[in-house]
Amino acid sequence: MVGGESLTGRAVFYNRAVASLAAFMVGVRFLAVLVLLSAIAGGALAQGADPLPSWNEGAARQAILGFVDAVTREDSPDFVPSAERIATFDNDGTLWVEQPMYVQLAFAIDRVKALAPLHPEWKDKEPFKAVLEGDLKALASSGEKGLVELVMETHAGMTTEQFTQIVKDWLATARHPRFDRPYTELVYQPMIELLAYLRANGFKTFIVSGGGIEFMRPWTERIYGVAPEQVIGSSIKTKFQFKDGIPELFRLPEVHFIDDKAGKPVGINEHIGRRPIAAFGNSDGDLEMLQWTTLAGGRRFGMIVNHTDAEREYAYDRKSAFGRLDAALDAATVNGWTVVDMKRDWKRIFKFQ
Amino acid sequence: MVGGESLTGRAVFYNRAVASLAAFMVGVRFLAVLVLLSAIAGGALAQGADPLPSWNEGAARQAILGFVDAVTREDSPDFVPSAERIATFDNDGTLWVEQPMYVQLAFAIDRVKALAPLHPEWKDKEPFKAVLEGDLKALASSGEKGLVELVMETHAGMTTEQFTQIVKDWLATARHPRFDRPYTELVYQPMIELLAYLRANGFKTFIVSGGGIEFMRPWTERIYGVAPEQVIGSSIKTKFQFKDGIPELFRLPEVHFIDDKAGKPVGINEHIGRRPIAAFGNSDGDLEMLQWTTLAGGRRFGMIVNHTDAEREYAYDRKSAFGRLDAALDAATVNGWTVVDMKRDWKRIFKFQ
Repeated sequence: MVGGESLTGRAVFYNRAVASLAAFMVGVRFLAVLVLLSAIAGGALAQGADPLPSWNEGAARQAILGFVDAVTREDSPDFVPSAERIATFDNDGTLWVEQPMYVQLAFAIDRVKALAPLHPEWKDKEPFKAVLEGDLKALASSGEKGLVELVMETHAGMTTEQFTQIVKDWLATARHPRFDRPYTELVYQPMIELLAYLRANGFKTFIVSGGGIEFMRPWTERIYGVAPEQVIGSSIKTKFQFKDGIPELFRLPEVHFIDDKAGKPVGINEHIGRRPIAAFGNSDGDLEMLQWTTLAGGRRFGMIVNHTDAEREYAYDRKSAFGRLDAALDAATVNGWTVVDMKRDWKRIFKFQ
Repeated sequence: MVGGESLTGRAVFYNRAVASLAAFMVGVRFLAVLVLLSAIAGGALAQGADPLPSWNEGAARQAILGFVDAVTREDSPDFVPSAERIATFDNDGTLWVEQPMYVQLAFAIDRVKALAPLHPEWKDKEPFKAVLEGDLKALASSGEKGLVELVMETHAGMTTEQFTQIVKDWLATARHPRFDRPYTELVYQPMIELLAYLRANGFKTFIVSGGGIEFMRPWTERIYGVAPEQVIGSSIKTKFQFKDGIPELFRLPEVHFIDDKAGKPVGINEHIGRRPIAAFGNSDGDLEMLQWTTLAGGRRFGMIVNHTDAEREYAYDRKSAFGRLDAALDAATVNGWTVVDMKRDWKRIFKFQ
């Protein structure tokens, strides 16, 4: 019954059409020929088209293809029914750029500057002080948790709908300092292909990010094909209230949930209620998600994107202020997770390259 | 891209098959004839089959059909794209029986009795005292919130997977005191049909219940066709930890979120990130969900199930200890929500009737 739920209108049409035709008992032989021809054609097409054109031949690409084959082929010992094919993706540094700082931090900095005249007390209060003084090193030292707190504090005091509009407006004009492009163009093309490839193979793809859930939802559907209900992230509390007879959710300056590190498995369980069979991350913040996904028996897939390409993007790992990859890199060796070397494994990083 | 994500394997096959055939440029005329025949056949079938066979003719049934037609017909001024067709359903009293007490309360009582020897202090501590003394009136007066707290307290101290197994084991043997059947047979057949009808029309159906999220997920997919990731409910905190090298989520005796009353819009926003266009409830606990759904402009649908059939099920509303329907019934008149009179509007209530 769940399968029925997730059918798109077009798929429902085809299913209904085919079923109805059979019921009509007209042209039954047509149908048999059609199915045969289609199966041959479909097979030929599937073999001909490369689902991962931005991935170089190599161990990472082969590991992906091998895993998907193993869990989707019905005669495979590792076959997993479509409903249980849950794949979770970190966002910052896994799907889009996180240097020279998290995108949400750039957004927060712009918000702090815009709102500073209304908050004279921020001059003496961290992390606002660091932002206003342009002391990014002091700010960076507060880590992802510090960022989340900054965002929570500066992004409360409006309705959820107002906040969505603020995010959309900012993304429409903000540009990355090095690439001079909108942030939504600085998404990793090989990962976009991977998301689509998994979905074409019956996976449900979720984002599981330490970033704010409401900061991602306004654009993840358009950019990644991931619907708002499949985005999990950190959140502040909201309050249901009426204003002029219209119900609204008002954002409160209080942390509700931090979806990072050991919070990721908790957030996954709360939102999805199933354990993923594949997880994709790039930093120590993803360690527990990768453990939760892969260390439970059965054929599982863990992948870490290692930023090794200073020329086309950035090179950083064990000592980076943002997206530090240290313990999770060691764990990858121990647990057999696939480590993507961006320089070696990706033909291009961004679509425009 | 989201559409592609939600395709089932079978639908993908048909889509691919049809697309591939077209690419082959073989039998193009066959295809045209096929599509024409199928459209005719599909139309005939759609008109012939009643999607809501357990609903009597009347205003409630007509309101449902009219709403679905208005938001799904592409030339309708109220058309809503499939991705935005979110429908939320309360569970207790809306999808299954909640008398003589919430099912989860019956479960909690059995758990308290089973665990009592390990907790001598419960003899003097409410609401455990009331449970052990069989004083259901005292227990009922604590309301849904009291129930949730009882459940949280008695159902912590194990992993999420252990809890799932406990729920499954209990449901396999527990029987309703009046109907002497498993609780999973005491679901409202007209609502099961409604869920399926909405999904067949491109809706995503979610459960939004004051009950425990982990109490519902083990069975909602089988009984309602609602996948775990589309179940929203109250929850306790969980902690990620390792035991013997295996990661687990351990349930803590601490409330994380109460998904009732004003918590329902908050839970909907947190999990779905879109505002529903249709909401279905039966008690005052659903008031804010109905307001949030329907009072935002655009064609919306609100429905309240009114328990009026003491013979086939139960009759209760403004003074019931469980599932009280008072303020929400008044609000239904003001806001034009559809009120289902179970006795009048439903041909049968349970499948076995």
